[in-house]
Amino acid sequence: MKRGNLFVLSGPSGVGKGTVLKRLLKEYDDIEYSISATTRPSRRGEINGKDYFFLSVEEFFQMVDNNQFIEWAEVHGNFYGTPREYVEKTLQEGKDIILEIDIQGARKVRESCPDAIYVFLLPPSFSELEKRLNKRGTEDEKSKEIRLKNAREELKELVNYDYQIVNDNLEEAVEKLKAIIVAERCRVRK
Amino acid sequence: MKRGNLFVLSGPSGVGKGTVLKRLLKEYDDIEYSISATTRPSRRGEINGKDYFFLSVEEFFQMVDNNQFIEWAEVHGNFYGTPREYVEKTLQEGKDIILEIDIQGARKVRESCPDAIYVFLLPPSFSELEKRLNKRGTEDEKSKEIRLKNAREELKELVNYDYQIVNDNLEEAVEKLKAIIVAERCRVRK
Repeated sequence: MKRGNLFVLSGPSGVGKGTVLKRLLKEYDDIEYSISATTRPSRRGEINGKDYFFLSVEEFFQMVDNNQFIEWAEVHGNFYGTPREYVEKTLQEGKDIILEIDIQGARKVRESCPDAIYVFLLPPSFSELEKRLNKRGTEDEKSKEIRLKNAREELKELVNYDYQIVNDNLEEAVEKLKAIIVAERCRVRK
Repeated sequence: MKRGNLFVLSGPSGVGKGTVLKRLLKEYDDIEYSISATTRPSRRGEINGKDYFFLSVEEFFQMVDNNQFIEWAEVHGNFYGTPREYVEKTLQEGKDIILEIDIQGARKVRESCPDAIYVFLLPPSFSELEKRLNKRGTEDEKSKEIRLKNAREELKELVNYDYQIVNDNLEEAVEKLKAIIVAERCRVRK
């Protein structure tokens, strides 16, 4: 059986990764979602095994020791990780799976999953900035410089990605992500 | 301005390239169609500059001499070519353009346009054949061998393509082609 594709959706914090992914999964059931494990307490309404796998710190580090995470990280005193087994099982069944993760996490995933397909979600302000910077003189030099510097810092990562989507319209961003998934299924593997 | 993408739609004769492309262009006006030049007489209803550029043999070879074709070939005593200028102009304007061509032609286009995106349209019988060949014993060995040989001959070209689409359902084939076009616009160029 043809192995499924692993998609990694990443981008700067606050860009709307979760919203785009949620909408995608609602409209499109031909892809699985990689559920993260975490040691943070569950919030009201969150379901264990659906939103997250809620683990104790002991359970979490047992999995770390057993190399059961594709990547893991500490964020604000809590631990988060991507369980390897579910991803691997899904891919082996020929199904696609998508993983939502921050830029640091995506970098770690890349080390163990170089064949995954990496999608960078860009904030609309990036493209706006680009447009603005292309039109000379519409912004004073200093603030232009600062914006450019910040943008450059985050954009540096872009070269490591396969696709970029500007999230200036939710529907369009979801359509593009869907197109990427469909197109990648048609890709001739060499 | 970001340069447009050149898409090359190819595949074995009779696979339905023209039908898929016609439907795509009807549903989706965000891509241009590369009009071929030919020395064959126009047929009833064909419009010069829309269906083809109808040229005399002299005009055709004037263009050949001036390197004005991306590729050209003789088919059943008539000459066909892909005018370079319209393709180049469209790409420079940042618009995508799609070219429908046989496998031989696609091979020539690849020499001058290695950056184009190559899509191979497969006949449903290929996938059917594959399925059938995977199930042992459902066909006698000799005819299985012949089918396999023919399929292999044409499939050899597949490795030179970026995408494959099995044309077992027109709507789905068009959807996939559209997805490829949308996805390629999101591709991070390295």
